[in-house]
This record gives sequence, C-alpha cells and structure tokens, in this order.
Amino acid sequence: MTISDEPTRVGHLVQRYLLGQSGAQISIENGEIASSGLADVILTDGADKGDDCAVIEVQKPITLVVGSDYVRGPKFILYEIGLLSNYDIGYYVVVANLSDIAAMGATPIGVLTVVRYPGDLTDASFNEIIDGIHQACTDHGTLNIGGDIGNAERIILSGSALGFCRPDTVLRRSGAQPGDVLCVTGPCGLLGAAVAYFPKRETNGWSLPTATEEALLQSWKRPRAKIAEGRLLAESGSCTACQDTSDGLKATIAQLSTASGVGFDVYADAIPIDAAVRAVAELMEVDALTLAMSASSDFQLVFTLAPDAVETCAQKFNEQGLSFRPIGVATEPEQGVRLLNQDGSTSDLPGVAWRHQSGDISRLPATSGG
Amino acid sequence: MTISDEPTRVGHLVQRYLLGQSGAQISIENGEIASSGLADVILTDGADKGDDCAVIEVQKPITLVVGSDYVRGPKFILYEIGLLSNYDIGYYVVVANLSDIAAMGATPIGVLTVVRYPGDLTDASFNEIIDGIHQACTDHGTLNIGGDIGNAERIILSGSALGFCRPDTVLRRSGAQPGDVLCVTGPCGLLGAAVAYFPKRETNGWSLPTATEEALLQSWKRPRAKIAEGRLLAESGSCTACQDTSDGLKATIAQLSTASGVGFDVYADAIPIDAAVRAVAELMEVDALTLAMSASSDFQLVFTLAPDAVETCAQKFNEQGLSFRPIGVATEPEQGVRLLNQDGSTSDLPGVAWRHQSGDISRLPATSGG
Repeated sequence: MTISDEPTRVGHLVQRYLLGQSGAQISIENGEIASSGLADVILTDGADKGDDCAVIEVQKPITLVVGSDYVRGPKFILYEIGLLSNYDIGYYVVVANLSDIAAMGATPIGVLTVVRYPGDLTDASFNEIIDGIHQACTDHGTLNIGGDIGNAERIILSGSALGFCRPDTVLRRSGAQPGDVLCVTGPCGLLGAAVAYFPKRETNGWSLPTATEEALLQSWKRPRAKIAEGRLLAESGSCTACQDTSDGLKATIAQLSTASGVGFDVYADAIPIDAAVRAVAELMEVDALTLAMSASSDFQLVFTLAPDAVETCAQKFNEQGLSFRPIGVATEPEQGVRLLNQDGSTSDLPGVAWRHQSGDISRLPATSGG
Repeated sequence: MTISDEPTRVGHLVQRYLLGQSGAQISIENGEIASSGLADVILTDGADKGDDCAVIEVQKPITLVVGSDYVRGPKFILYEIGLLSNYDIGYYVVVANLSDIAAMGATPIGVLTVVRYPGDLTDASFNEIIDGIHQACTDHGTLNIGGDIGNAERIILSGSALGFCRPDTVLRRSGAQPGDVLCVTGPCGLLGAAVAYFPKRETNGWSLPTATEEALLQSWKRPRAKIAEGRLLAESGSCTACQDTSDGLKATIAQLSTASGVGFDVYADAIPIDAAVRAVAELMEVDALTLAMSASSDFQLVFTLAPDAVETCAQKFNEQGLSFRPIGVATEPEQGVRLLNQDGSTSDLPGVAWRHQSGDISRLPATSGG
C-alpha cells in the first residue's frame, strides 16, 4: 500500500505517460498527431517539459475552441456502489471534455486534467485514474498536456480541452433554420438507464441478462466523444447547428431550439432507442422513449443539416464507418418543440431534462400501465 | 435566502457579467482588450454565446500557452476561520491561473472557471464568488470566457487560463546559464506568514498592529498576477528562465535550478522581506528569511537575466511603475543552490518548500533563540 507524496507522483507515476509528447504536430487535414509533417499546430512544450503552462505554436490562422468540464467523480453513483473503477472515472473525465470539442466540429489539440485526491489514496489507485486518463486520450487521438495534481479531502476530477478547426468552420448551436433536418449520431439514454437500474437492482429484485447489464455499464466505462463525426460535419459546410447530448436528448433539443430561434418537430418513431434502454424502461414501468430522452450524458451529437445535404453527409459518414439518423425537422419558432406521435398527434417532448439540482431520473412518470 | 437552480444561476446571475464579451479583440502589442482594432486574436464566441466551448479566432502565427490550477477553496484555512470571503476565494482562483500565464511571459486571452457548490449555497453567496471571479478578471485585463457551474457536495474552485505571445518569445524554466542574474519581482512569504499567524493568533496570544494584519490578509484577498512584468520580460529578449513563486521562493529557485541545469548562489541580504513577514517570524521565533522562502503562493516571478540586460530591464520596469530585485547569480550545476550569508559562509537555502502532503509551514525550525 504505497502512498507517495505529490512530487513523486508527478515525477514518476504520471511522467511515464508524458515523455516525448513535446514536439507533437497536429494538422487540420487529417486530425492526427505526428512527430513531423506539415503541421498547423505544434505542441512545443507538453506536460513532459514541466513548465507552468503547455506551449502550442500556432503556425497559421485557425479557429481555437476551449471548454471545461468538471465531472462528479466519486459522486458518480455507479462508482460509489463499486461498478465503476478509478480507471473508469479517469477515462470519463477526458471524454466529457473531448465531447465539447467534438460538438464544435474541432480537432483536439490536448486535454488538461485536474486530479485531486485524499491523502490515503494509494499509488495503485492513483495509477488507475492516470491510466484511465491516458487511455482515453490515446483512444481519441489526443494528449494529456498537463493540468493539476495534488491533495484534496476527496477525489476531484475536472478538465479542460483545447481544439482547433479551419477558420469559420466551427459548429455552433445557433445556426439552425426552419426546414433543416434534425439528426442524432446514435441512441441516447444508456447512461441514464444504467443509473436508474443498478442502484435499485437488488431492492427491486430486478434482473437483466448479463449482456444487457454489460451494455449499460460500458456506456459509462468507455464512452466515446464523437470527434470524427464532428470533424465531418464541420468539413461538410452544411451543418447549421450542433451540440452534444451531455444533458440528455430532450434538453439538447430544447437548447438548440433556444439558441437557433427555431422550433423542432421530432418524430417519435425515428428516435433510436437501445435495447438496453427498452429493457430498463420496462422494469421501471416507464415509456422507453421517455427514458431515452431524459438526463443521460451519452455524448452523442445532435445537429441540423440543410435538407439537400443529408444524403451526401450520410455517405461521407458511411465511408468512415460512422452513421447518424434524422429524427426531426426545424420549424418556425412559434411552433416550439413538439413530438410527432405515430398516430399523428403532437405532444411535448417526453423525459426529464438534466438540472443539476432537481434532475432525478428515478422520478420519471410511470407509464399508464405502471 | 434564495437558492436558485443551476440553469437560473447560469442564465441570470452569471450572464450579467458575460454579456458583450464576444467580439473582444486582443493584440500582442499592448495586451489590451478592445472591441475593434488590429487584433491578433478575437474572442468570437465568449461565454455569453452559451456554446459548448469558447471560440477564439487566431489571425496569425502566435505562441499559445495554457494551464490549469485547482485551488483549495474551502480548505483555505483562512476561509475556514472566516477571514476570507466567498468573494476572496473567487478572486484567488483567477489570479492563481493568471499567474501561470504571467510566468510564461504571455498576454491572457481568458480564464475558464469551474465553480461547484453544495445545494444549500444561497444565491447571495454564489454571487459573491462570481463577483470575485469577475473582478479579478477585470483587474487583470482579461475575461472569464466560460467553464463549468453546478452542484457538488462542497465548494470546488478550479480554473484554466489561456494566453498568447509572439512566436518564440515564451518564457520557460529551462534557459538559465551560469552567470545570469537571478531576480524576483517582490517580497515573498506573505501568504505563508498569514497562514502561520491567524489560525494561532488566539491560542498563542499573538497580537500584531492592525496595519500589519491587514497587509497579511490582503496578500490572500487581492493577490496580483505579474502579467505586465512577464510581458516586459518576454519582450526584453534577455530573460533566460522564469517561473512564478506559487510553491514558495525556495521551491521555485530549486525548480529553476533543476529545469535549467544550473546552480544558484543566492545572496541572503538581497532577498526582499516584507515587514509583516518579519513581524510574524518574530512571534514564531523563526528566522525571517526562512519564513520568507517557505511555502507561500505569492505569485511573484523569479527569473534570470543575461547580466548585461539587467540595467535596461530595470529601466523598462521603472517606466511602467514596476520593479524587480536581483537576489543571486546562476552558477555551474556542480555548485548546487547555496545561500551566501553576510559573513561570507554558504549554507543550504532555508525554508520549507511546498509539498502538497508534507509541507507544513507551522513546522518551521525555531531560531536558535526560540
């Protein structure tokens, strides 16, 4: 049970992952990191240099994006009940931050992480967090370029991510026009369903097949920021608005509506729903669509496309083994955000949006059958 | 005792400070923010735009610097005992982050802040934190360009700052050469002295004049990141290494020594010591120089200058109402870091360096008279 002090942790435990990162070059063209080539930005001094800041040489005019996300760390309920590991929460903090970069259509330059921990955290546990951070950066083709490590009374995880794109290709929330097609990169609600299921599994006598439980847990353990998708959308020139679903699908659509000043008609039968979400909804006796649209940090992208660009865009996604799904259409603002049901009726979007204080997915209204 | 939910806080309480920041232009030339002009970087989308990230248009090749600092927030002992306010800790988190930008010789582009708080924090208290953050940004000529706001089980404050400078003018820790003059922008140890004094004032029956107590408290309440000094040093072309003293003077000199691969001879009688530090040292029965060099986040800059540049640099500082003080000289690495005492003898640098777990300034060795 080794517990090193902080300089040792920075010097030995973290440094092994940082060595050699200085000099990394990133081009907008392919978004990849190379040690040489025709770079648009160069990470001159990474975290391996141990200076007060990371240093990035910007070689030509670019658009830079930067955002910060704190994650709830040990307040993740699934971490508290032992279903997520230190590795998993380290992985998650990176993806949460990269997802904001993806939503802007940018290529990540790097992630800064804040890792604070109580004095009794062992080196083994500390290493797990750092391993998770490192692997998430690697899996997303980017680097952990520094941040802050040290003591606190409990584990605290936060981060900032930096990305760049060609001038004037950045994706915002505000450009949707009536007639634009509303799309999503994949099914939502998995993370929310996992939180609704696992903590109550035993008290409620719930049981799901192992594969279903695994799908729910994996949504938390190995989320993926939709970097490649965001890049394709930015390059397409026809994506008019974009946001990630870190607050859940319902909240995301509402925010795009407000930012763009449009309404949305959302087709109830077009929304992709994962089988695991359906299974949990059934146990909870709530409507699966409601659960799929509620608070859940799935890190999907929700975006709008000019109608004549949908086919070309779908093809470009397809070429890279990616996909998205049209789920609605932007309307005049007076119409607001509506769900178009299969029977032709309209209603408000179902689901509970994420509000840091009041959002509690366990309080979803029961289905009429429940 | 209003306690708004988080969207309300973002929408109303924070937004009032963000309105109009988008479009701000910053030039390297004067480092100031303007709404128009020949800008090197433009904050196209600030936090007022409410997108996933802030967007910054970089107009031409620049060097970008970025760093993150978590501050201990409610674990500040002076906050715990009621001597620092919510406003003060909000102010502090910004300065801690800007100090890293100053140490690189860069001009700040903006600060991202993470403000997390318990559910029972009133709007009034929340506003105080935001007010402090805003005022610190204003006082340092920069903008709070976003970050993260929401619930946590206690107050958590963290930040990231972004800055830029002309290509190849960035200041690092690693360039000092034997013969370079070691300098500091001002007296160190005030924050450490405040922490050593106030919590034990009553139990020890200590009493200092009101003006002295005020000086100690102000070091925590209104620290100043040495942005202007860092800019001057970067422009001078003769600053070979630089770092801020956020870990205390002793630790900073040791880190510059390691990073540059030089030794330092530090002149005991040249180190500026504030009268308040002397007063606390006397009460503690420790040597004033020891207290001045110990763990203390004064945010001074410690730097090295080519010997023939010291006079010109001092003049440039003087023209802007700023100053610094030579305190030593870089030596061959074999000599290590030494204190040159007035009697001609040499010794190790005194003081307790900041180590997040073991650094405890209250355990300073007593003076021989103590």
